[in-house]
Amino acid sequence: MTVQAILDIKGHDIVSVTVDTRLSDAIALLSERKIGAVMVMKEGRIEGILSERDIVRVLGMRGAAILEEPVGAAMTSKVVTCRGSDTASAIMEKMTNGKFRHLPVIENDRIVGLISIGDVVKWRVHEYEQEQETLRDYIKTA
Amino acid sequence: MTVQAILDIKGHDIVSVTVDTRLSDAIALLSERKIGAVMVMKEGRIEGILSERDIVRVLGMRGAAILEEPVGAAMTSKVVTCRGSDTASAIMEKMTNGKFRHLPVIENDRIVGLISIGDVVKWRVHEYEQEQETLRDYIKTA
Repeated sequence: MTVQAILDIKGHDIVSVTVDTRLSDAIALLSERKIGAVMVMKEGRIEGILSERDIVRVLGMRGAAILEEPVGAAMTSKVVTCRGSDTASAIMEKMTNGKFRHLPVIENDRIVGLISIGDVVKWRVHEYEQEQETLRDYIKTA
Repeated sequence: MTVQAILDIKGHDIVSVTVDTRLSDAIALLSERKIGAVMVMKEGRIEGILSERDIVRVLGMRGAAILEEPVGAAMTSKVVTCRGSDTASAIMEKMTNGKFRHLPVIENDRIVGLISIGDVVKWRVHEYEQEQETLRDYIKTA
């Protein structure tokens, strides 16, 4: 199972804000859309990513005043990305090592989707179940 | 791989607050400890769970004023739990279906740990790799 296959089913929707968006407005967007992260974009280029984790971290460190500041003050600027051809297990390892839960998918220097740990878990379970079944069938008939 | 096996390696630490804890203090705790959720407890009994997601949802809906309110106003009260004997795949399915990322582990009516989607992914990948290897070895030598 590749990232591309997951995106083909999940969809390619990308919700984004700009670095100037007020943090409280970005939070309202996450809340309304029931999503865990938004991309921070400028003219099609990735400037950062803002996740629920980023928000709680910065609130814990700086208090309520941060809510009136721009997203740029709270986002993660060093964004780790993946490609459509990456496997689900490679993505899982990236997420486990980096302790983050969202990875933008890049093709030809453009963002084509956003994969969450929940998406990967869902499809990885499915993929493994199929592989196990194939191997068990093989053993049964061998 | 069972929940118990994951907990044995991860540890049984449970970070908790009470329903009366101010939300901003709970957020500071999550931020300091670099964790994604705390249990809300009263005399050893679970009253709720407060996750990064809960915080962002309630901030989006009610704004900064919620930060001064007690945790009880933001937490998830209907807590889904699991047992030490549950398998990692059962837990993954529960998390995928319920769209949450943390599950308290209960034994004899007491909480003995807290499992996150990150913990499960980490150990599930490990477990599957071992199972695949065993099956492949079997096929090679059959």
